[in-house]
Amino acid sequence: MAQALRLEEKRTVGLVETRSFPLPGPLPLDSGEVLEEPVLAYETYGRLNKKRDNAILICHALTGDAHAAGYHSPRDRKPGWWETMIGPGKGIDTDRFFVICSNVIGGCKGSTGPSSPNPRTGRPYGLAFPLITIGDMVRAQAQLVDYLGIETLHGVVGGSMGGMQVLQWAVSYPERLKKAVVIASALAHNAQQIAFNEVGRRAIMADPAWRNGDYYGTPGPRAGLAVARMVGHITYLCREGMDRKFGRRIQHKTGDKFSPSFAVESYLSYQGQSFIERFDANSYLYITKAIDNFNLAPAGNLEAVLARVRAETLVVSFTSDWLYPSYQSQEIAAALKEAGCRVDYWELVSDYGHDAFLIENPPLSALVRDFLS
Amino acid sequence: MAQALRLEEKRTVGLVETRSFPLPGPLPLDSGEVLEEPVLAYETYGRLNKKRDNAILICHALTGDAHAAGYHSPRDRKPGWWETMIGPGKGIDTDRFFVICSNVIGGCKGSTGPSSPNPRTGRPYGLAFPLITIGDMVRAQAQLVDYLGIETLHGVVGGSMGGMQVLQWAVSYPERLKKAVVIASALAHNAQQIAFNEVGRRAIMADPAWRNGDYYGTPGPRAGLAVARMVGHITYLCREGMDRKFGRRIQHKTGDKFSPSFAVESYLSYQGQSFIERFDANSYLYITKAIDNFNLAPAGNLEAVLARVRAETLVVSFTSDWLYPSYQSQEIAAALKEAGCRVDYWELVSDYGHDAFLIENPPLSALVRDFLS
Repeated sequence: MAQALRLEEKRTVGLVETRSFPLPGPLPLDSGEVLEEPVLAYETYGRLNKKRDNAILICHALTGDAHAAGYHSPRDRKPGWWETMIGPGKGIDTDRFFVICSNVIGGCKGSTGPSSPNPRTGRPYGLAFPLITIGDMVRAQAQLVDYLGIETLHGVVGGSMGGMQVLQWAVSYPERLKKAVVIASALAHNAQQIAFNEVGRRAIMADPAWRNGDYYGTPGPRAGLAVARMVGHITYLCREGMDRKFGRRIQHKTGDKFSPSFAVESYLSYQGQSFIERFDANSYLYITKAIDNFNLAPAGNLEAVLARVRAETLVVSFTSDWLYPSYQSQEIAAALKEAGCRVDYWELVSDYGHDAFLIENPPLSALVRDFLS
Repeated sequence: MAQALRLEEKRTVGLVETRSFPLPGPLPLDSGEVLEEPVLAYETYGRLNKKRDNAILICHALTGDAHAAGYHSPRDRKPGWWETMIGPGKGIDTDRFFVICSNVIGGCKGSTGPSSPNPRTGRPYGLAFPLITIGDMVRAQAQLVDYLGIETLHGVVGGSMGGMQVLQWAVSYPERLKKAVVIASALAHNAQQIAFNEVGRRAIMADPAWRNGDYYGTPGPRAGLAVARMVGHITYLCREGMDRKFGRRIQHKTGDKFSPSFAVESYLSYQGQSFIERFDANSYLYITKAIDNFNLAPAGNLEAVLARVRAETLVVSFTSDWLYPSYQSQEIAAALKEAGCRVDYWELVSDYGHDAFLIENPPLSALVRDFLS
């Protein structure tokens, strides 16, 4: 009772579970290869109505997963990654909408990825896993939506890499979504964004424990993956936010010359260490590469590609997000408008950097809520 | 003759050599420890005049060294690191000034650092090398200036970490310099700057070949040091500059899934690889820590500390430098002014990011030239 009360007070979807959807057949990939026996891990919140027209698909970012809201057990201390946005009466209101979130192909949280067994060998794929794209992720999601008996989604919503999937949905399945919400994302990575991802990849591959990707059953490239995550966290925050949160505060003073002493060093160290307990290094390589390669119009015909879009689109960026700066969201909105689409763009003031979409953000919730209703 | 002609055309100081200055006694350090048998590597360009009042000391940045200008041999393809600024008729005019540059204590280019033999063991120090500070670097330089028979420097000039040394000079030896030039620097690192340095340090220490700093005689943490340098290079450029230089251009297309393919990836890889041939990983740890710990007024009495300054100061920043953003240079200038010092501040337009002070930059050269004359 106490638990239930707590959950209710928090306006959460409560206890949820991750389910597994084995795709009915092999998944054709943009690379020309085929993924055998693909599986998607997914969760749903709220109820699909009789007309089957109240479904919202959530697309996660680089290190997200299917667990977007609620708790897996009453003992869980942390809810799903977008608990601030998804739930009864929240920005994405589970009293009104049937919400779906799946782990991407290439991931490591139940969907088929490089750590999954390769059906041809019975051993984890490692680098034998084919290169995947944002298009492949979305193609798999479309089959999940089929399986759930949904012809047309009311909306597809995502931030960062999730926003790329939303754009891909709007282009690949224009008739299957009414509304698209693209938060803190880009039409394509710029050189600096590629560079940061590449440093993360190099940090992993520089770790001898990576063993050319064939590390399953061993500890794996923990040190390298932690460094990759540390770089990431610098880019998720912003300078002002970091200064407010940490400044030059000293946290630990040990005799060890190079152990973390500044609070910001301890924070990065903690983020790196906790990440390696929950994420697969090869998934980090494959997914960052999919992000870097994302390009809606590799042939340069962006306007023609976007002319297919039927969804009404909401584009949002944050003033202090320097990883996905506002100019990139403005480019998305301008390109959609140019192509004749209905689009609304908002730049929200925040000093939480790229993380602004993941934390409690009432203006963002209000925007999304209004747009979806 | 052809070589000499080439050098003349380029307005260079020509052939130069690095000399070694063994300090007359042990160097007391801010940590309370003492550095035994310290040595500074240094170079000089131009001639000291009879009044011995035309000397300019150059302070280098994180990975710089004593070789600031000219060539070590006619076969050298690259000149010293600040060839664009130092030479006959240049911003720091060797026809007028006697220019001195020394490698910092803690460095690896001839000055005593963690790769130097520990007099007590005969083996390289490694982590037995004491923690050093910007103050220690400057204390050693002051002895070099003594040795060269110079009472008062006409100027002390530096960018980035070099600018921190300049500020330290102005505070520690107020009577010994007339002019100070602080370029793209800070009174103290902010949390983001510490964070980037920490990621570099972690990348080095995550490499098993680092062996807790005891890697001399072995290949050492080459992969980790390369990653550290890659992170650095992202911060030395700016987003706009990277996009102009690389964009999303594909450079290599190999069968290898995660080998560099984007031009910016190849660039970072090249920078990382060439750096490990010329720099010591432990020096990277010690020097970045000295930078992070730099704080002119740890007791918080900045105005009182700066009130000692007698030098006239020129402070310069660059619009696109996000590693040492203009606000930090403005803080330096404001603090000096507040303390009653003569100070001039310029923000120069550039899209070369932090690197703007190291590349051919006629407005910067003109500013420095005017200020020193």
